[in-house]
Amino acid sequence: MLYRDAGVDINAMDAVKRRIAGIARSTYGPQVLSEVGLFGSLCRVPKLRDPVLVASCDGVGTKLVVARMCGRYDTVGIDIVNHSVNDILTLGARPLFFLDYIAHSKLSPEHLLELVKGLGKACRDNGVSLVGGETAMMPDIYRPRDFDLAGFIVGTVERDRIIDATRVAPGDVVIGLPSSGLHTNGYSLARRVLFDKAGLKVGSRVKGLALTIGEELLRPHRSYLETVYRLLGRVHALAHITGGGFYDNITRLLPGEVSVIIHKSSWRPLPIFALIQRLGSVPDGEMYRTFNMGMGMVLMVAPKQADRILDSVPGSRVIGKAVRGTFGVSVI
Amino acid sequence: MLYRDAGVDINAMDAVKRRIAGIARSTYGPQVLSEVGLFGSLCRVPKLRDPVLVASCDGVGTKLVVARMCGRYDTVGIDIVNHSVNDILTLGARPLFFLDYIAHSKLSPEHLLELVKGLGKACRDNGVSLVGGETAMMPDIYRPRDFDLAGFIVGTVERDRIIDATRVAPGDVVIGLPSSGLHTNGYSLARRVLFDKAGLKVGSRVKGLALTIGEELLRPHRSYLETVYRLLGRVHALAHITGGGFYDNITRLLPGEVSVIIHKSSWRPLPIFALIQRLGSVPDGEMYRTFNMGMGMVLMVAPKQADRILDSVPGSRVIGKAVRGTFGVSVI
Repeated sequence: MLYRDAGVDINAMDAVKRRIAGIARSTYGPQVLSEVGLFGSLCRVPKLRDPVLVASCDGVGTKLVVARMCGRYDTVGIDIVNHSVNDILTLGARPLFFLDYIAHSKLSPEHLLELVKGLGKACRDNGVSLVGGETAMMPDIYRPRDFDLAGFIVGTVERDRIIDATRVAPGDVVIGLPSSGLHTNGYSLARRVLFDKAGLKVGSRVKGLALTIGEELLRPHRSYLETVYRLLGRVHALAHITGGGFYDNITRLLPGEVSVIIHKSSWRPLPIFALIQRLGSVPDGEMYRTFNMGMGMVLMVAPKQADRILDSVPGSRVIGKAVRGTFGVSVI
Repeated sequence: MLYRDAGVDINAMDAVKRRIAGIARSTYGPQVLSEVGLFGSLCRVPKLRDPVLVASCDGVGTKLVVARMCGRYDTVGIDIVNHSVNDILTLGARPLFFLDYIAHSKLSPEHLLELVKGLGKACRDNGVSLVGGETAMMPDIYRPRDFDLAGFIVGTVERDRIIDATRVAPGDVVIGLPSSGLHTNGYSLARRVLFDKAGLKVGSRVKGLALTIGEELLRPHRSYLETVYRLLGRVHALAHITGGGFYDNITRLLPGEVSVIIHKSSWRPLPIFALIQRLGSVPDGEMYRTFNMGMGMVLMVAPKQADRILDSVPGSRVIGKAVRGTFGVSVI
């Protein structure tokens, strides 16, 4: 009995890994010291006075199911990188390197490569080095077409430039930055409503949507790095609107005695959210607790900083304010 | 329609997450600056002259299937931490922090906690801070009892102390350090042979094995940090014997013109490997390409260093030598 009889063909995977290594190399910044293929990846710490590492780990969730339904694998690679970049950006960090974890049963080498091409593109776009990762073939855990994708990011920030949300104060202005779509959250609910309940297909076209349902759902998660990094000195806090929507992601940042009111009427949700809400009869509260509704990043800033930020970021707008109170977040 | 109707109950998961946060806090070293629950974890870089970060990502593979069969979830948590610690140790790194990715469908809160307790214990034992992670509940990707576990580790090393395998030279002695069992590799083959082909159960007892089959297979991956870290100044290269066995893991380190001969007769494989080989009629080459055979870490050292290392590490022994040649690794 050989290892490949047990469903794992090491040689076939080696060929894919060589091409993946080439994509990874194309993302390397000057800090990367190691070649691909060691037991770990080596990366110098950028020259900072008191460097602090900022790390985060996340998955793509069931957006992967939509990718599989569409037979399109590059966009979820972009999603996990941009999602991760945004997460550590909320603490003031510039991304340094990224590692991916891909687990699957029988993803074809072509689909695996498409996935890694997405990772590589997003890494290059964000200036982050894809220094390593693991591709695990586990036919006993994943069904033939299923797969999972997680990402791990490390960035750096000067210790005295860490974004410290305790500076948020009553009177602060809450500014929303537009999202490209669902980003990477709420897909369990979206799929139930659109596919199971409403009977739509990934190829369906619905009035008001520019693309097919599948394409709308697969729109890549937007990276806010370029837009937001240069503004970090002017903000009190950033919330990445991911799972938990406006409630959990803002509440967890707030100092005691400060709460936030979000005004729903201050922007029109992207058409895809209106469609999900209508077809699923989803209550408003549940929508704002699950989805970003068209605002993927929220900045909290002193009033005197607001105009300058609004002027310099296309699509940004005031969506609420910080007030005295202990109710957390209220969406009205 | 609510989000929990789609199979995701955020409130139930929040309760588990609070207990997980407590375990994580118990591992924090002095470098950790952040509280649990932000979008990223903050960790200072230890004071080094020219700090280099060493990062690695890996999964537990289908050892998870054995854990599920045994209904025992803590040991795989230990496995992924120790596996990761060993990986970056081969480059000379001391671990700094760890993040986990757990994906599942319906793991009970108790099993999830058991798993994280294993992570926490191993993190404390290795002096690494469990600073973050992601627990994703994805009923549409994982079957009810299936789950996946991956880990990401970051350690640090002084730039001029990175273990540089180019120092390996013909004449170097190859020393093996004992493993505790399969560690985290070869489970697809082991399960096929032991369970599918030979019809054994996890509770089966076999002559020559101290524990049941399930317990033998779940023996935690050994961490070599404490044993090996103090020896790093004396070694030319370290190979962590993981997937790919003695061939891939040693070959990838070797400088051109240097090859390694491993003498099978220099140690007796652990009984579990002998059992798998016998019951599965697995050829020798396949065994040494798939399993660690009882030697989980391999050191390559100058001959004059060998005695001192052999004297100071219980169970270590000479298992081969480096020679001039381009054949890579030969197990004879």
